[in-house]
Amino acid sequence: MAVYDVSSIVISSRIRLARNLKDFAMPQQIKKDEGFSVLNKVVGSVKGLDDFKVYKIDSLPKEDAFVMQEKHLISLDLLEKKDYGAVILSSDETISIMVNEEDHIREQCFLRGLELEKAYEKLNSVDDKIISSLNIAFDNKLGFLTSCITNLGTGMRASVLMFLPALTLSGEIENITKALSEKGLCTRGVYGEASSFDGFMYQISNGTSLGLTEKEIVGAVKEAVLRICDYENRARKKLLLEREVEITDRVLRAYGILTNCYTLSSSELLRLGGELKMGIALGIIRLKDNGLLDKFATSCMKYNLFKIAGKNLDAEEEGLFRASYVSRMLKNQRIK
Amino acid sequence: MAVYDVSSIVISSRIRLARNLKDFAMPQQIKKDEGFSVLNKVVGSVKGLDDFKVYKIDSLPKEDAFVMQEKHLISLDLLEKKDYGAVILSSDETISIMVNEEDHIREQCFLRGLELEKAYEKLNSVDDKIISSLNIAFDNKLGFLTSCITNLGTGMRASVLMFLPALTLSGEIENITKALSEKGLCTRGVYGEASSFDGFMYQISNGTSLGLTEKEIVGAVKEAVLRICDYENRARKKLLLEREVEITDRVLRAYGILTNCYTLSSSELLRLGGELKMGIALGIIRLKDNGLLDKFATSCMKYNLFKIAGKNLDAEEEGLFRASYVSRMLKNQRIK
Repeated sequence: MAVYDVSSIVISSRIRLARNLKDFAMPQQIKKDEGFSVLNKVVGSVKGLDDFKVYKIDSLPKEDAFVMQEKHLISLDLLEKKDYGAVILSSDETISIMVNEEDHIREQCFLRGLELEKAYEKLNSVDDKIISSLNIAFDNKLGFLTSCITNLGTGMRASVLMFLPALTLSGEIENITKALSEKGLCTRGVYGEASSFDGFMYQISNGTSLGLTEKEIVGAVKEAVLRICDYENRARKKLLLEREVEITDRVLRAYGILTNCYTLSSSELLRLGGELKMGIALGIIRLKDNGLLDKFATSCMKYNLFKIAGKNLDAEEEGLFRASYVSRMLKNQRIK
Repeated sequence: MAVYDVSSIVISSRIRLARNLKDFAMPQQIKKDEGFSVLNKVVGSVKGLDDFKVYKIDSLPKEDAFVMQEKHLISLDLLEKKDYGAVILSSDETISIMVNEEDHIREQCFLRGLELEKAYEKLNSVDDKIISSLNIAFDNKLGFLTSCITNLGTGMRASVLMFLPALTLSGEIENITKALSEKGLCTRGVYGEASSFDGFMYQISNGTSLGLTEKEIVGAVKEAVLRICDYENRARKKLLLEREVEITDRVLRAYGILTNCYTLSSSELLRLGGELKMGIALGIIRLKDNGLLDKFATSCMKYNLFKIAGKNLDAEEEGLFRASYVSRMLKNQRIK
């Protein structure tokens, strides 16, 4: 279907599975001692799995927890479950299992590129081992029982992170969002407020997980993603033809600001990084490492930036360090 | 009084004298044949002056007329007096004499820096020669009679162009404007709308010209300018102390945009040029030629830019050419 480079449109794929233990209240209603029992049972279930490590939230330094959160390995909600919350991570960080978040168990596999099937396979084999040793809440009619009804059934959410500057600038994204919604698929802007689309990033995912098999869900999301890739590709060609001066100017100004600014906030980096990424996608500008800007979206967030700096920074130092780091990296990386 | 570098605050000085011929209606009411008579008489009066050249508006190519207007040698109003309007220019373009604009004769002398006395002396010697051979409208009580009552008396306006970024950003400029107004002096933002102060440029001048001698007017304006220089100098020091990160960032971003943009409008150049000029004044950035940005304010306006390009440009070409010209010049000129 697509003959162009999908990698300039699709950033990453994610499969998430929600599971709960039969004999315990859901996390919202759970009591402290029950919470600890769930934690012990889940941790016990992964003992047979190589290459995984357990991090209990109450013994995780705050900075390390936020580093994980910025990498989307854990949620902010989990950080509030101080007593009996935990995350179980694979050493390559592609698989994370949150314990006692919205559900007792939330497994996710995250891969770069359009790799929904592969992510599902990887996560499914881990899931098989986990649930085989636990008494899982499952109903023959409703499937996996979950804390929120939208997750009933397979308990699965398949989502793809897409970079859609041309569909955003042309305004077509609105109609696409509506059309996807009619097919039971969700689109949401990733950065900034719900209503804004800073960074041109969108998450496409299934809205419900009941009444379809896991493979059907993966197939439906993938089919939609490939269709959107086609639309975006066409919109990019049109954009360059019809608005070349305006778009080139936006891209080069973003580069000018990112390589000259004295202080830089993370939200500005995401916005300007999106403009620059558009320039790379359209061939206006070239960097040695095409993935550099995607890496910034994690490495230059507050706590990950502290890791690069080798120390904690106050708000002013953080802005100055981010500006100088991003500027240096981008100048060194530019080819065209 | 001032021990710092006034040249980073004062851009230029201008003296303007308004004169009218006794036996003719004022330009607003003048008839065509009278207009031609005035033109002939004034042109005749400068015959004895070396180094001046007469340009009649009706025989001046449109592009050349706009080049003069962008250099502030003539006004837009004069360009509408196609039939009997003219300008008489000294070869170094420091003195221009408009004929049949708001008054029959409008002489001006324009010099870089704080040079009001020198500008007055130069213009006065030219004025003496012109009015000695003409029958000038003069009243022993009211002085020179002019088209607008604010010019009655000496017919003189002494004005100084000042660059006041620190007083603008601190908000102090408002109180200064009020205090000057109470002393009969005018302050107005030069670029952009009357209410905006893009480029941080202000014109300080006498509000009326009646009841004071020429020397008293020059003295009053100069004294006010020197006091404002002191205020601006103090405000700059405070700005650097209290808002170093914010101001440095603004300056460096302006540089980043001006050296990377793909298209650039003249109003944007004035605004960003003002930010960059502030950076030079504050020692944040250094160029080989400190006057470069002031030159851009004329050389990069539409019709002067056509001269550099060597041809007329359409709107899109103009923006592209300005961006590439400014970017190249600034990159070559940067020392720090």
